[in-house]
Amino acid sequence: MSDSLNSFLFSTPEMTQVFSPDERLRAMMRFEWALTCALEKHGLAEPGSGGILEALLRADFVNREALERDARNAGNIAIPFVRQLTESIKARNERASRTVHLGATSQDVLDSALVLQMRAATELLQSAIRHLDQALVKLVAAHRETLLTGRTWLQPGPPTTLGLKLAGTLAALRRHRERLSAAVERALVLQLGGAVGTLAALGARGEGISAEVARILGLPEPELPWHTQRDRLVEIVQVLAALTGSLAKFARDTALLMQTELSEALESGDHRGGSSTMPHKHNPVACAAVLAIHTRMPGLVATMLYAMPQEHERGLGLWQAEWETVPEAFRLTAAALTYSIEVAERLKIDSTRMQHNFEALHGLTLSEAISAALAPKMGRSAAHELLRLATKRAADENRYLGEVLKELPELTAHLTAGEIDKFMDPRAYLGSTYRFIARVLGEANADN
Amino acid sequence: MSDSLNSFLFSTPEMTQVFSPDERLRAMMRFEWALTCALEKHGLAEPGSGGILEALLRADFVNREALERDARNAGNIAIPFVRQLTESIKARNERASRTVHLGATSQDVLDSALVLQMRAATELLQSAIRHLDQALVKLVAAHRETLLTGRTWLQPGPPTTLGLKLAGTLAALRRHRERLSAAVERALVLQLGGAVGTLAALGARGEGISAEVARILGLPEPELPWHTQRDRLVEIVQVLAALTGSLAKFARDTALLMQTELSEALESGDHRGGSSTMPHKHNPVACAAVLAIHTRMPGLVATMLYAMPQEHERGLGLWQAEWETVPEAFRLTAAALTYSIEVAERLKIDSTRMQHNFEALHGLTLSEAISAALAPKMGRSAAHELLRLATKRAADENRYLGEVLKELPELTAHLTAGEIDKFMDPRAYLGSTYRFIARVLGEANADN
Amino acid sequence: MSDSLNSFLFSTPEMTQVFSPDERLRAMMRFEWALTCALEKHGLAEPGSGGILEALLRADFVNREALERDARNAGNIAIPFVRQLTESIKARNERASRTVHLGATSQDVLDSALVLQMRAATELLQSAIRHLDQALVKLVAAHRETLLTGRTWLQPGPPTTLGLKLAGTLAALRRHRERLSAAVERALVLQLGGAVGTLAALGARGEGISAEVARILGLPEPELPWHTQRDRLVEIVQVLAALTGSLAKFARDTALLMQTELSEALESGDHRGGSSTMPHKHNPVACAAVLAIHTRMPGLVATMLYAMPQEHERGLGLWQAEWETVPEAFRLTAAALTYSIEVAERLKIDSTRMQHNFEALHGLTLSEAISAALAPKMGRSAAHELLRLATKRAADENRYLGEVLKELPELTAHLTAGEIDKFMDPRAYLGSTYRFIARVLGEANADN
Amino acid sequence: MSDSLNSFLFSTPEMTQVFSPDERLRAMMRFEWALTCALEKHGLAEPGSGGILEALLRADFVNREALERDARNAGNIAIPFVRQLTESIKARNERASRTVHLGATSQDVLDSALVLQMRAATELLQSAIRHLDQALVKLVAAHRETLLTGRTWLQPGPPTTLGLKLAGTLAALRRHRERLSAAVERALVLQLGGAVGTLAALGARGEGISAEVARILGLPEPELPWHTQRDRLVEIVQVLAALTGSLAKFARDTALLMQTELSEALESGDHRGGSSTMPHKHNPVACAAVLAIHTRMPGLVATMLYAMPQEHERGLGLWQAEWETVPEAFRLTAAALTYSIEVAERLKIDSTRMQHNFEALHGLTLSEAISAALAPKMGRSAAHELLRLATKRAADENRYLGEVLKELPELTAHLTAGEIDKFMDPRAYLGSTYRFIARVLGEANADN
Repeated sequence: MSDSLNSFLFSTPEMTQVFSPDERLRAMMRFEWALTCALEKHGLAEPGSGGILEALLRADFVNREALERDARNAGNIAIPFVRQLTESIKARNERASRTVHLGATSQDVLDSALVLQMRAATELLQSAIRHLDQALVKLVAAHRETLLTGRTWLQPGPPTTLGLKLAGTLAALRRHRERLSAAVERALVLQLGGAVGTLAALGARGEGISAEVARILGLPEPELPWHTQRDRLVEIVQVLAALTGSLAKFARDTALLMQTELSEALESGDHRGGSSTMPHKHNPVACAAVLAIHTRMPGLVATMLYAMPQEHERGLGLWQAEWETVPEAFRLTAAALTYSIEVAERLKIDSTRMQHNFEALHGLTLSEAISAALAPKMGRSAAHELLRLATKRAADENRYLGEVLKELPELTAHLTAGEIDKFMDPRAYLGSTYRFIARVLGEANADN
Repeated sequence: MSDSLNSFLFSTPEMTQVFSPDERLRAMMRFEWALTCALEKHGLAEPGSGGILEALLRADFVNREALERDARNAGNIAIPFVRQLTESIKARNERASRTVHLGATSQDVLDSALVLQMRAATELLQSAIRHLDQALVKLVAAHRETLLTGRTWLQPGPPTTLGLKLAGTLAALRRHRERLSAAVERALVLQLGGAVGTLAALGARGEGISAEVARILGLPEPELPWHTQRDRLVEIVQVLAALTGSLAKFARDTALLMQTELSEALESGDHRGGSSTMPHKHNPVACAAVLAIHTRMPGLVATMLYAMPQEHERGLGLWQAEWETVPEAFRLTAAALTYSIEVAERLKIDSTRMQHNFEALHGLTLSEAISAALAPKMGRSAAHELLRLATKRAADENRYLGEVLKELPELTAHLTAGEIDKFMDPRAYLGSTYRFIARVLGEANADN
Repeated sequence: MSDSLNSFLFSTPEMTQVFSPDERLRAMMRFEWALTCALEKHGLAEPGSGGILEALLRADFVNREALERDARNAGNIAIPFVRQLTESIKARNERASRTVHLGATSQDVLDSALVLQMRAATELLQSAIRHLDQALVKLVAAHRETLLTGRTWLQPGPPTTLGLKLAGTLAALRRHRERLSAAVERALVLQLGGAVGTLAALGARGEGISAEVARILGLPEPELPWHTQRDRLVEIVQVLAALTGSLAKFARDTALLMQTELSEALESGDHRGGSSTMPHKHNPVACAAVLAIHTRMPGLVATMLYAMPQEHERGLGLWQAEWETVPEAFRLTAAALTYSIEVAERLKIDSTRMQHNFEALHGLTLSEAISAALAPKMGRSAAHELLRLATKRAADENRYLGEVLKELPELTAHLTAGEIDKFMDPRAYLGSTYRFIARVLGEANADN
Repeated sequence: MSDSLNSFLFSTPEMTQVFSPDERLRAMMRFEWALTCALEKHGLAEPGSGGILEALLRADFVNREALERDARNAGNIAIPFVRQLTESIKARNERASRTVHLGATSQDVLDSALVLQMRAATELLQSAIRHLDQALVKLVAAHRETLLTGRTWLQPGPPTTLGLKLAGTLAALRRHRERLSAAVERALVLQLGGAVGTLAALGARGEGISAEVARILGLPEPELPWHTQRDRLVEIVQVLAALTGSLAKFARDTALLMQTELSEALESGDHRGGSSTMPHKHNPVACAAVLAIHTRMPGLVATMLYAMPQEHERGLGLWQAEWETVPEAFRLTAAALTYSIEVAERLKIDSTRMQHNFEALHGLTLSEAISAALAPKMGRSAAHELLRLATKRAADENRYLGEVLKELPELTAHLTAGEIDKFMDPRAYLGSTYRFIARVLGEANADN
């Protein structure tokens, strides 16, 4: 919202533009123009009418002040918009003005304009997703073997690699891309139904006109008008919200790795998040923004879901609840993607520190490796108990687990010192890590 | 949002102004001015510094473009704002510029500015609530005895009066007023804690300076800074959401009464909701707007609640999620109140139609009256069964229930024709209606 | 919830069973059994171990009281479950007990068990959707030409047919079926990753064992474990919520048509919603339940979305937030579908009353037909103004619009009395209604 | 939900009991008993009827299976409950059975029963809040001076004390206690209005009977029945959600301090969160549960808010949406309080580690102290720049900031080595910390 001093933080300039008042009026104008062209083709509008409307596609004729004033009484902006458009046409050609908006209802122009805006908006998002995908692919490939502490419940566990960690986000992103494509295919359809969704005012020519409007706008036709069947819009907003959820997981992990006590990663960038007094401090500015956005999206989804039971042929209030909600979802998602791209492209990894943090645990988190090896020999429970005592001793005495283990006869009965050393090597305890990464990267031999 | 063509429908001009970028900068400026005055008083700022900042209270010096650009890297607008302010002061008086913002953190100025804006905003809301209260009091008093069908599950029941129906809304409104007062009292407090909420940069003078800033701004001091304790803001937004919920109940009922098949009420107004083709049609434009607003508020509340667990001394992302959410809640609520006032002040009641609709039920909904009278004599179940058959017969034969009842010997054994007639009089079956109304209106004899 | 006296109203017996404690334990048991079989096949478990676990598939060995007590300290039920299982096996065969759960983490068994339960649950839903589809197809076909008032903003407009109204719901239902299939295909995958998602405890055999577990359980393998990538579950719950939104639209419309003042439809059934005192009263009991369910679903979606940023390799708290949320979404959706089937199968339509209610409007809502016909001749605005006056006069004088129109010279200059009569015939003003219905029903000639 | 294997993790046994089916039936029974007593007193029920109902207060007579079956058709459990009750009374005394439930509607008994349950439930909560308050008071007092790193954006800043950190939670808890008291005072009122809220079936005796029922149940009377004015219930659930939000902040901070890399705190307890293989590992089990609960509460609040616009005298579907939502909010909140008490009572603090972690920053986070001291002398900006370079040098050379500073002539021109040492002492940079703590603890000299 440009009336909030903070709104620029929660959108991108391009997405703000797509849903700007100017673009909205132009999208409405394109619908009216396409309708008039179709009416003309089917003999209902004066020949040449389409051309006259074409000259107004920039919607410069609109008196915004009058629009707002009249919209308050009308309940929407379409009614005064059509009135102003009709007057503008009339001043040029009275006969062409006669059939402006003929056959359509306010919701037809408003919904179709929204669909046109969403088409431009999803193109922006899809481009950003591709961009982020590429950045993540690079990171995953580059850090395939960068070892760091695996963490569960915010507590250290066995090792993993940064590549695997990020591969999870990459794979989720690709599922969201699939979902977005499917949602877009279902949602980006024409709205044209007239007062109650029957196209009655166009008589027998309704179908032909509808098909022609769809052709001109490049939008598929739905089986029937969807004035009070809003599942398509709901699906779009839900996909956007889930996408920001996955981005938030990436942001949260990054911010946690950036804690000075860990110092494993850094969201860098000139002047980014720098504090004037503490040079070692780098606030995770982009991560914070993504987390903020994620916190706002579920509320938008809830609004869309609650707004579904729109009454009869056109609803009362619930439709209006969508008007600012859908654009907000697109703006927030665009910003979240842009911030995520920044993080992914500029992420500084301190692999030395990652290694150091892992080693500072003195091998304790590798106890599972020994335990798993012993399980078939002495039972998982007995092995656990043995390791529990050994790790406690190692921790109490501040020694490496491997050393302690080599002193335990119950254990050396089963494993040689060399075997113990091998189990204490984190690189030897990565299991299927590389295979999982290869699968996500779609590498040729991934599943051989 | 002014970048949405529809945003004016979801705010009032006054509330839009309160949360405009200009007012936000001015509120931030007032905080910095008050802080400098306090520093000056306590000997930490150059004498005369306060006066120099006072000259900038309109915040005209701000270069908005630079602010936005720098805020993106800084993560908030306070950092570039303070930088620009310092430069502006420096150009006037270098020594005065030395202590701008001294002791405060970004969140101090942003939170305190929000509190100042909320103070102006709640005054607008409280005034609107009083206005609506008056309009409802008039309606309740005027329609104390206006009889209409009571409806449950959208099905007709015994009679009630319009006064009682609206008294429920009035009583709820008053509870919300109480809640808002309590919330405001808790929430409108100064934020001043410095980097981690200890006021350490002000040394031993922290307390005195904090007290002085609070005095200048006219805000109470909290026991301690609340950078990551956000329950106060949450409470405010929750009260606003619950208030719009009660307004939505009023709007929904009104819209239902406006259904042409009922035609019991009309949201009137010049040109309001009129359709160009159907003079009998009056779209409930204001009711629809209130319902739309109500549909959007719970999402804002959810955002505020989810944003509560802000980490440590100042959080990461969750705070940012509040920035646009709190103003949006105020804007939407202000609009909902204004629409509700319009509805209440212009509501046209068709009491003849209300009476007619009730009578069209042929007394069937008064069967409960007879049934209740018979219960102590023959048992509630037996009475019900008797009435069930009688009402079925009345309905099948399209006759008045009273007539049918007088033909039933089981019934006339207990009630005379005169008694039956009395039970069939809806005005005699209003129970405690008038007493309930009197209580809500606070009439002297209400509880005598 | 069975500890709520009302929970049976918000589930179906079958769905309650799928998510019962018994079935959950059995699903967990199936995972452990499959894992042991796979370990055995790959030489990590004692030969015959799989068979020993197979005998425990009913999970009768579980001491529920001990499970609850221990789970409180462990933080989940998997840890005590595995302990009890190990003890049970040990009592049978010590060697087989050694490798129970080897290589898996608690979340592996809990997530995979949930996936198995969701598979059964979605089968129930898909069957119910097919059932509802059939019921709606019948209604649409039967009421293809059943004329009723089209309603917008709860105000009457031009006519539509009940078939078209319901075709909208049918088309939405089919989109939801598509979405559910896609979501299920993405979501119903094995979870097996070990402590930090690397399968490290299984060494080089991880892949083979994972593939074998997947084969035994009949679940596809994901590219990599998804312990903290929860988009799949989110998608499922989102689809369910949107589905209930469309069902709520059907329920709301039905309940509105059931208003006694309209009496166009009736949710019937023996004793259904009958009031003991008012035979004409039929509470829309099933519709109310669907609306209640719809009101609860967005909160579940919001929870799932907020729970997405799960930290690192396994999260802290957000995962736990899903545990009761996913089953609740399935239970509620199952109930909503069942109620909707009841409504669709038992819906009594009063087509005479529909016709009567339309005619009671005296043709006013057909003014659009005349207006549309005049537009090309005199301009849409002038036509509207003419009709506005005519309808006002018809309403004021309580006459049919057609009669009034025939007296207007401005109009008779363009249209003959015969033409006016034709425009006043609602059946002639249905536009593309039948074509739209044919498209939804997939009739052969739908798009010819 | 007891049909979920996990439900015990999200409630307490006491709260589960309060909202159990048995207690619900007993609460309903108490309402019916009180009503009969009042009817008897006012001459509408057979003398002795009250006593007869009193004998059934345990509600043992209810056939639960029949109740469920019949409730499905009736739409709620009150109708079959009253039927079963009437039959039970009839078997004892036919005359007493005649007036069972006379004058009341289903919603009267269900709402009043809920109010009675909420009264017991809020007593449990208030007791738990007091308990937690005491535990926090002890912690705050004990750790008033326990120094640890202040953290903003998850990055280190100047020092604070654990006492101050926890004082914030304590102060928030007390605000919630106030809110809960106010909400309870408004919400715990009788519901008794009859079919449409007029008490018509009780004629002129409605008021007296209502007053008597209120007296017997110990519940205040509202000004008028609140069948479709639900703000009271909404407020309660909102307060509970905000309370869990503050508890989640406490849990999140604790879990972050428990990260092994910090190791500043430990959620202890026998066997609590222990991993069988890693003795140093202690999963923050209770913290995780609180965070899970917090994630679920906003959805419940949203449901309550969306359910507000209940139609006319009694609503359609929205009321039903509350039935499981209100108890769930109480159960979750009770569990969150209990977990928080566990955390607060068993929290192990490693103050040595806190000190160590702070010192590991080499004084960098105290640069603000120097900078604030220099600001009045050389300007805040110039001071910052000086410190920025100094801290960078200290970090690069891995030296203490104080040492580096003493080498800078620009700085030693203003500050002596002794002064620098003083500023580098974290205990001297706690500002108003102790005063803030004293205020929260309400210590006598807090505001002197």
